[in-house]
Amino acid sequence: MSASTRIPPIAQPFVSDRAKKTLDLVEEFVEKECVPAEATFSAQLGEGEQRWNTTPVVIEQLKEKAKKLGLWNMFLSKSHFTQGAGYTNLEYGLMAEILGKSKLGSEATNNAAPDTGNMEVLAKYGNEAQKQEWLAPLLEGKIRSAFLMTEPDVASSDATNIELNIRREGNEYVLNGSKWWSSGAGDPRCKVYLVMGKTDPSNADTYKQQSVVLVPAGLPGITVHRMLNVYGYDDAPHGHGHITFTNVRIPVSGMVLGEGRGFEIIQGRLGPGRIHHAMRTIGAAEKALEWLINRVNDDRKKTFGQPLSAHGVILEWIAKSRIEVDAARLIVLNAAIKIDQGDAKSALKQIAQAKVLVPQTALTIIDRAVQAYGAAGVCQDTPLAYLWAGIRTLRIADGPDEVHLQQLGRRENKSRRDAIAAKLKWQQQESDRLLIASGFKAKSHL
Amino acid sequence: MSASTRIPPIAQPFVSDRAKKTLDLVEEFVEKECVPAEATFSAQLGEGEQRWNTTPVVIEQLKEKAKKLGLWNMFLSKSHFTQGAGYTNLEYGLMAEILGKSKLGSEATNNAAPDTGNMEVLAKYGNEAQKQEWLAPLLEGKIRSAFLMTEPDVASSDATNIELNIRREGNEYVLNGSKWWSSGAGDPRCKVYLVMGKTDPSNADTYKQQSVVLVPAGLPGITVHRMLNVYGYDDAPHGHGHITFTNVRIPVSGMVLGEGRGFEIIQGRLGPGRIHHAMRTIGAAEKALEWLINRVNDDRKKTFGQPLSAHGVILEWIAKSRIEVDAARLIVLNAAIKIDQGDAKSALKQIAQAKVLVPQTALTIIDRAVQAYGAAGVCQDTPLAYLWAGIRTLRIADGPDEVHLQQLGRRENKSRRDAIAAKLKWQQQESDRLLIASGFKAKSHL
Amino acid sequence: MSASTRIPPIAQPFVSDRAKKTLDLVEEFVEKECVPAEATFSAQLGEGEQRWNTTPVVIEQLKEKAKKLGLWNMFLSKSHFTQGAGYTNLEYGLMAEILGKSKLGSEATNNAAPDTGNMEVLAKYGNEAQKQEWLAPLLEGKIRSAFLMTEPDVASSDATNIELNIRREGNEYVLNGSKWWSSGAGDPRCKVYLVMGKTDPSNADTYKQQSVVLVPAGLPGITVHRMLNVYGYDDAPHGHGHITFTNVRIPVSGMVLGEGRGFEIIQGRLGPGRIHHAMRTIGAAEKALEWLINRVNDDRKKTFGQPLSAHGVILEWIAKSRIEVDAARLIVLNAAIKIDQGDAKSALKQIAQAKVLVPQTALTIIDRAVQAYGAAGVCQDTPLAYLWAGIRTLRIADGPDEVHLQQLGRRENKSRRDAIAAKLKWQQQESDRLLIASGFKAKSHL
Amino acid sequence: MSASTRIPPIAQPFVSDRAKKTLDLVEEFVEKECVPAEATFSAQLGEGEQRWNTTPVVIEQLKEKAKKLGLWNMFLSKSHFTQGAGYTNLEYGLMAEILGKSKLGSEATNNAAPDTGNMEVLAKYGNEAQKQEWLAPLLEGKIRSAFLMTEPDVASSDATNIELNIRREGNEYVLNGSKWWSSGAGDPRCKVYLVMGKTDPSNADTYKQQSVVLVPAGLPGITVHRMLNVYGYDDAPHGHGHITFTNVRIPVSGMVLGEGRGFEIIQGRLGPGRIHHAMRTIGAAEKALEWLINRVNDDRKKTFGQPLSAHGVILEWIAKSRIEVDAARLIVLNAAIKIDQGDAKSALKQIAQAKVLVPQTALTIIDRAVQAYGAAGVCQDTPLAYLWAGIRTLRIADGPDEVHLQQLGRRENKSRRDAIAAKLKWQQQESDRLLIASGFKAKSHL
Repeated sequence: MSASTRIPPIAQPFVSDRAKKTLDLVEEFVEKECVPAEATFSAQLGEGEQRWNTTPVVIEQLKEKAKKLGLWNMFLSKSHFTQGAGYTNLEYGLMAEILGKSKLGSEATNNAAPDTGNMEVLAKYGNEAQKQEWLAPLLEGKIRSAFLMTEPDVASSDATNIELNIRREGNEYVLNGSKWWSSGAGDPRCKVYLVMGKTDPSNADTYKQQSVVLVPAGLPGITVHRMLNVYGYDDAPHGHGHITFTNVRIPVSGMVLGEGRGFEIIQGRLGPGRIHHAMRTIGAAEKALEWLINRVNDDRKKTFGQPLSAHGVILEWIAKSRIEVDAARLIVLNAAIKIDQGDAKSALKQIAQAKVLVPQTALTIIDRAVQAYGAAGVCQDTPLAYLWAGIRTLRIADGPDEVHLQQLGRRENKSRRDAIAAKLKWQQQESDRLLIASGFKAKSHL
Repeated sequence: MSASTRIPPIAQPFVSDRAKKTLDLVEEFVEKECVPAEATFSAQLGEGEQRWNTTPVVIEQLKEKAKKLGLWNMFLSKSHFTQGAGYTNLEYGLMAEILGKSKLGSEATNNAAPDTGNMEVLAKYGNEAQKQEWLAPLLEGKIRSAFLMTEPDVASSDATNIELNIRREGNEYVLNGSKWWSSGAGDPRCKVYLVMGKTDPSNADTYKQQSVVLVPAGLPGITVHRMLNVYGYDDAPHGHGHITFTNVRIPVSGMVLGEGRGFEIIQGRLGPGRIHHAMRTIGAAEKALEWLINRVNDDRKKTFGQPLSAHGVILEWIAKSRIEVDAARLIVLNAAIKIDQGDAKSALKQIAQAKVLVPQTALTIIDRAVQAYGAAGVCQDTPLAYLWAGIRTLRIADGPDEVHLQQLGRRENKSRRDAIAAKLKWQQQESDRLLIASGFKAKSHL
Repeated sequence: MSASTRIPPIAQPFVSDRAKKTLDLVEEFVEKECVPAEATFSAQLGEGEQRWNTTPVVIEQLKEKAKKLGLWNMFLSKSHFTQGAGYTNLEYGLMAEILGKSKLGSEATNNAAPDTGNMEVLAKYGNEAQKQEWLAPLLEGKIRSAFLMTEPDVASSDATNIELNIRREGNEYVLNGSKWWSSGAGDPRCKVYLVMGKTDPSNADTYKQQSVVLVPAGLPGITVHRMLNVYGYDDAPHGHGHITFTNVRIPVSGMVLGEGRGFEIIQGRLGPGRIHHAMRTIGAAEKALEWLINRVNDDRKKTFGQPLSAHGVILEWIAKSRIEVDAARLIVLNAAIKIDQGDAKSALKQIAQAKVLVPQTALTIIDRAVQAYGAAGVCQDTPLAYLWAGIRTLRIADGPDEVHLQQLGRRENKSRRDAIAAKLKWQQQESDRLLIASGFKAKSHL
Repeated sequence: MSASTRIPPIAQPFVSDRAKKTLDLVEEFVEKECVPAEATFSAQLGEGEQRWNTTPVVIEQLKEKAKKLGLWNMFLSKSHFTQGAGYTNLEYGLMAEILGKSKLGSEATNNAAPDTGNMEVLAKYGNEAQKQEWLAPLLEGKIRSAFLMTEPDVASSDATNIELNIRREGNEYVLNGSKWWSSGAGDPRCKVYLVMGKTDPSNADTYKQQSVVLVPAGLPGITVHRMLNVYGYDDAPHGHGHITFTNVRIPVSGMVLGEGRGFEIIQGRLGPGRIHHAMRTIGAAEKALEWLINRVNDDRKKTFGQPLSAHGVILEWIAKSRIEVDAARLIVLNAAIKIDQGDAKSALKQIAQAKVLVPQTALTIIDRAVQAYGAAGVCQDTPLAYLWAGIRTLRIADGPDEVHLQQLGRRENKSRRDAIAAKLKWQQQESDRLLIASGFKAKSHL
């Protein structure tokens, strides 16, 4: 069964025939080209320090193949951008699920974070010069980029806390401060940072203090002084940098959109990216389920005379995983449609639902697969442990689950409480009216 | 926001304008007519033994209103039946959600179980005489019916275990055996039982031993010897009967479809009914969420100076409930579409997913609402405790969750293991080929 | 294996030989006398209104037997009271577990709530006349009592919210207000209410406004105007009353301890009672596990050719239940020892742990048993549904789980944060010192 | 509050004054010496290949200090061994909890796995020559060791599957086969492997085929051909080796206990080691809770104007963690006492309970701490991610949770079902007898 035939019936009306064809092509490309290339990618990357200076040849070869196949920049949705491959968020979402099954898939097709979000920012908010300088090579996959927002010394999940200072001096901005979790900053091809900082830290409106500027990597004063691990993985050459800025100077032309408009930019940046992450995560969960199924039918791995697949507990894991991943996928697809029909802002609630539900679902499923593999599951012999670690960060990145749940809960409560109170009150009165009309006493109510 | 505007974007293409109008009408009928009538229904039912002999006037009045509004027999899907109101399973599913918000909703619109399933059986498998005698008055809401399958002495979740004996003697069948959980058998308007039993207990094919016969209630030899409780609730006048058959004689014309075809009948009966149950349960979960929201904003219920809605834990309950119920709904709607596009058999997997996911989801949400209400939540002053108890039985009825999970797991495993094994094997070989081609050693594999 | 041989090794040093003998006697009494008498109790109670006016003979017979066996008032711990049977809280806790296996056990041995807490209050805070009038007959099991605290119109989990007014007029107090969940008030033998209300509602210290007074049941102005259900159970004849007080007059001699000392009284009342509830709940969980085991080995309940006990999922339920109930029991026993070694106040943390952990654990286990029984599990044919409903209220009574968790969390945090911060800070500095001493650079720290 | 004052009241009678003093000394040593030395250990270990060839000086310095303090070999329980420091399993368990708070604690005091289990094996089953050669230097901390059981090609959780061949040839055994997860084999100080294999693969009794032999590391034919990761950690220099044996020859004097007695040995080895692991894991959970508390009071990490500790959800995490870790600890301590009072075999059930409960509990708590730290929690700046990964393997090592649960469930079921069935049957009959004696009808029973 090809990917296009596995689209849930309820989503079918939203997928064009062209997108279905592309989807199947993506699947073939990922399963037959990307997954088998992963080991070579690691081997070409090498060992030790070299891993931060190398671009494995195999990834550039995959990119060439993908371009020829027309599998390029599918993430830029046709309703909001003109530079993409002409698919909706829903359609690309289905493709992103497949891309999530190989760690090379997204990059090979130029759909990899954080470049995708950065390209959206530049396409949406950049001026012509900025587009020329940075968007063009990004769209072609010639350079890579990073988005520097999180800081080590504050609670960045509340972005008003961000402290990196951007001070104007004549025709320049001078940057001072620290960033970490600057993902992608390790890659030798990473040529530009989009840096969020404060140009107006004393503005009474705490949402107007921030700006986003474009900073060429390697400027004097920039120190990438260490790379952070994710459960022991360093994600080289991509990496997660801890970077300090000491009197880093950029021309004023590096300002995106205008001073004080940083919040506007990060809010515009988040919606579709969350759908991409969520759908890739769905793909990872499906991959884990495939590996789980493969293990439990392994004839060499019988216990007490039976393959693992004969054990009821394992069958329940498979069944629950199937239900949970299918439910999570529908939540994401519904959010994607909502974006397609309006914009990310109108789909805030649906996006937040996907943001919270999907990583937790996938972690549960992957962890079941780890457990089924036993010792093999936690080591480098399956993709499971690495997938788990990466997805674990999604419960934290762009705001921890708890922040999103508080916001979702508050919004649901505020938007509905008055109408609900009025309805229940009216129903009680009407109920009493009917009781009395039928000769009974009114009830006591809470 | 009316019900039609709350349809998830992803489901919109499947709902006709006519169905949207009806949906809003259902909502108005349920919220403004049915819910307020519940207290009067209970009052008219009275106390003690009388509760099993009374048909509250108010329900018959609601039925008249519903008929006039055209809200009648919506459950019979237009693609599979001609006698219904002309909606798809998806469309009726959305209506069933609303009906689930009042315990009078389904009956008032003649969409109540077990009559719905029984009408489907008669419409699908009954002969003309049987339709004339039983289907016609059921469709008009003049009588009610029960489906007698579960037996106290065997594990009925495996229906081959059923033992009630149906022996042919001349032009009659003679029934002997016990049934319980004969839901609806308590109602004085219940005039016919569809009884599953064995006509051929020694048939080598254990799926050919069973038949379904039509048995008029009240025949000699039938004893409804007690009514069963559900967590203390007796569900009068509907009730759950424990019934014995001692040489009960019916004419051979009472045989449905033919001897030995009982399994065929029960399998045909289950699909849409599970969607109905699931969507009513979604409605119950939404109702619980409304009551929860109402409570946590109650100014009289402040603790330590704050309304409950200011507490983070409560906001998380609201948010999680919103996510969970939305995900569960999409699973059911997707299953309904699958039935609409084919039949229940082709949607077995999707139906089973809904069957397992929805009650567990709803129980969790209702239980949160109970907890928010404190003592009020467990008693008769909110609808919560009663909703919980009823839905708790859905994890058992028509097969416990565990049986469905085993079947889902087994099916997923069997249908996919060979293709997965082949793919992973090929990918390993291709991976090694690429490694070697690039000058590296092949990897060791599990 | 008798009960005394099942005492966890870690608890053995705390149980005297005398207590072990009594424990085994309790078990014999409960399993051989109380459990078999339950059906007769229900039958003697009868139907309808009569159930609130009847004292089944069988319970009084059991009380006589228990008294003769010396199984009487074991709850009054020897370190804090002189009127009891001379056991520690730990020892009685073990007995309470056994008593929890029959709904007649506690009352038959005069260890039933709310009388136990009320006897503690009277023994601790009552004057001689109060002891003479009410404690003496309670200790003899001649009358029963209720504790009226919860009110329908406020959030009673914050007891400062309580509003019932107690106004002094000359030599009398005049009571006005509403109470509900007055458990035990339905029993015809209930002769006295301990009523919490406000004598000084404008006192600046919100913990000095309340008092507890003794109110003979049946005084003019008292209306028990309805009984509340727990799920569908009314718990007759015990019951949970909704009671209003309209100018109810009692002599000033009914004041316990003194005006404004209500909080002192309810705090002194809660500790051991929570241990009792928790251990009875452990007993209920053990009972559910026994019923579960019995079901899954029932040869008549085979599915697909196997008894349920051959299914891995069921075996996992049994194993998890065993682990969970054993862990929960140790938490309660540890709390009981802490009370025995000091008092309830010094054991606040341990008691709160038991209060939260035990009901959730038991509900999970009972629900598994319900699920294993299928339809039989939710109805009157097993004790499971009734046990579940009763224990569900324990997550709410005496403050909902959430309030206890907030307090536990806050206490843990406050009492430890400074020491932890100092330690971690010191360790970082020492770590850096060692690094530098060994010729390395100091690390960056969070 | 020192460690000895934190001993749960229920465990106090089992801890001697001497052990309490030692416990406090352990705490001081771990918190003041070991934890601060961790960074230096890592720095001295260095980078790349060197990490597998280095013994950081700091660990040997810690060992000297520990020896002088008398903190040495506490794991060898006084009731079963003479070579240890003279504590019970319970007493050492409390110390192991503290040791679990530093990754250097166990090794610094010569209580580190797998040496501990190997020393137990040699002390229990080794002959004098074997003790002289291997036990003596292990007891002194001069060498390290590994236990080679798990194999890559079979499901090792069922140890009868093990395949490594041990063939006798004259005065030698010849070993052929593969092992992996040979933990500790990476350490340059690891001088001996205890290898489990088959000397008699065709023995009809599948539990008599295995033997354990002593194999000096570095013999010809032994290839440690790679080290396995745990998530992204390689645990150098300890490591988890994948090792092949090709015609490796050892003298027959390397046979432990005798041919065919391998199962006897591994069963004797497992009990106390599981207690050690469990208590160290409890220590890790406590450490995570400390780090969690430290974070949520960090003034620099306020969100929306409040420290995290003001958020209800966080307080609930702290409270639940406290309850869960306290319950889990009591389960382990109870198991330790059971071993102390008999042996590991008599405590099988209690040990299995600890084996299953503790890692799951600790993982939950550590994951909450990770989540509270956000990005910092998954990286090298807290001990949390590394603790999580290590403990995750405990749900797999020595048999996955699922195998232990099946065995626990099966044992509980088998040992109790007959007695339960008899009791319930008798109670039903007695219940009916009483009903009839009181003039009622007998009840129907399941």
